[in-house]
Amino acid sequence: MCGVRTVLPKKIPESAVRRLSFYHRILEELEEVGTGTVSSGELAERSGTTAAQIRKDLSLFGSFGKRGLGYPVQDLIQHLRTILGLDRSWRVALVGAGRIGSALFEYRGFAERGFHFVAVLDSDDAKVGGGWGDLSVEHTDDLERIVARERVDMVVLAVPASAVPDLMEAMHNAGVNAVLNFAPTRLDVPEGMTVRDVNMVMELEALSFALSQGGNRGRSGEGG
Amino acid sequence: MCGVRTVLPKKIPESAVRRLSFYHRILEELEEVGTGTVSSGELAERSGTTAAQIRKDLSLFGSFGKRGLGYPVQDLIQHLRTILGLDRSWRVALVGAGRIGSALFEYRGFAERGFHFVAVLDSDDAKVGGGWGDLSVEHTDDLERIVARERVDMVVLAVPASAVPDLMEAMHNAGVNAVLNFAPTRLDVPEGMTVRDVNMVMELEALSFALSQGGNRGRSGEGG
Repeated sequence: MCGVRTVLPKKIPESAVRRLSFYHRILEELEEVGTGTVSSGELAERSGTTAAQIRKDLSLFGSFGKRGLGYPVQDLIQHLRTILGLDRSWRVALVGAGRIGSALFEYRGFAERGFHFVAVLDSDDAKVGGGWGDLSVEHTDDLERIVARERVDMVVLAVPASAVPDLMEAMHNAGVNAVLNFAPTRLDVPEGMTVRDVNMVMELEALSFALSQGGNRGRSGEGG
Repeated sequence: MCGVRTVLPKKIPESAVRRLSFYHRILEELEEVGTGTVSSGELAERSGTTAAQIRKDLSLFGSFGKRGLGYPVQDLIQHLRTILGLDRSWRVALVGAGRIGSALFEYRGFAERGFHFVAVLDSDDAKVGGGWGDLSVEHTDDLERIVARERVDMVVLAVPASAVPDLMEAMHNAGVNAVLNFAPTRLDVPEGMTVRDVNMVMELEALSFALSQGGNRGRSGEGG
C-alpha cells in the first residue's frame, strides 16, 4: 500500500471532507481511463484547487505517497475510500415515500457508492404495504422496531417539515446517528447525531439572489 | 415601510445569503401564526444564530428597523423578498426528464417560492413529445431556441455527468445565467454564470465519513 499510514484525526473541517469526496471521484475517472499515477499538480488542476491544498488535506490522515513520484491512483482511491467510509456498505432507511423519496430510492448513484435502501417508511396508511422494489412500505410508527430489525446505519428523510420533530425524536430513540435531510426545516439535532441538509429551495433562492443583485457570479455552493 | 433603505452591496458572503433565506422562512412561520413584531433576540434563537449576526446580515442591505422596537414581521418579510429576488416570479427550464427531474418538476416548494417550470428538455428522442403537466418535453438540441422563446431565467440541470459539458456550452450560448446543478460533476462555469450544486452522493459521503471517523457530530451542511 505504498507506505499508507492512517491516523484518526480529532477534527476535520467540513470543507476538507468535501474535497476528499471530490478527489475520490476524479481519481475514479482517472482509473477508468487507465491512469496509473497522478501528480498532485494534475489532481489539483482537475479539482480546481492547489497541489499544496491536496497535500494538506491528505496529510490530515497520515502520510501518503512519495515526494516527486506522484500518487498511485488505485492506492490513493483505496486510501480515500477507507477515510470516507466507502470501503463498506451502509444500510439506509428511506423515511417519506413521496415524490422526492421515490426519486432518491430509484437513484443509482447511492447504491454505486455503497448506500443501500433496506426499508421504506411513511405515515400514510394508504402507502403502507405498497411495493418499492423488493421492499414493502412500512409505517413510521414502527420506526424504532424497523431500525433495529434492519440494523439501519442512516436515514434519508424526505417528509414535510411538519412531520420532522416527531420523527427526529423517534430516530434518536432508535439510535440513528446519521440523517440526510430533505425536509425544508432546521432540525434540532440531538447529541451524537450527524445531519446533512439538502435544501433545494434555498439553492434556488441563492440563484434568484444572484440574478437580482447581479453579483456573486461564478461557482458557489457545494463541492467547493 | 418603516424606514427601509436598500443599498446594493458589492459582495455578499454566501453564508449571509443562506441566513437571509432562513430568516425569511422563519418570519413566514411567525406571520402565519399572527406575530406582528419580533425581536432580533427571538429571531436569532429560532435561527440558531445571534442577534448581532442578524443585525449585521440585515445591515448589508441598508438600515432596517428601529433599535429597541423589534422588527415588524410583514415589513421584514417584504424587505427580505426584495433582497432575495422573491418579489417576482422566475421562469425555469428543467433539463433532464428522468427520475430526479420528475421529482423536482412535481415538487411544490419551487412554485410556492415563485420558481415556475416553463420548459422540459431531454436528449432522449423517446421522451421528446411526452406530456409533463401542461408542458411537452422538447429536445435539448433546441435549447437555445427554447430559452429565447420562453425567456428562461434559470435552468435546473438533472442529467448524467457525461451530458454536462455540451449542455453547459449550449446554455452559455443561450445566455442562461443561473443553473441549479444536480449532475454529479464539477462544472466549468463560464464568466457571468452562477451555478449552485446539489450533490446528494457527496452529502451521503459526508455522513459515512462522520459515522466512520466518529467525529464531526452535530449539524453541518447547508442552512448553517
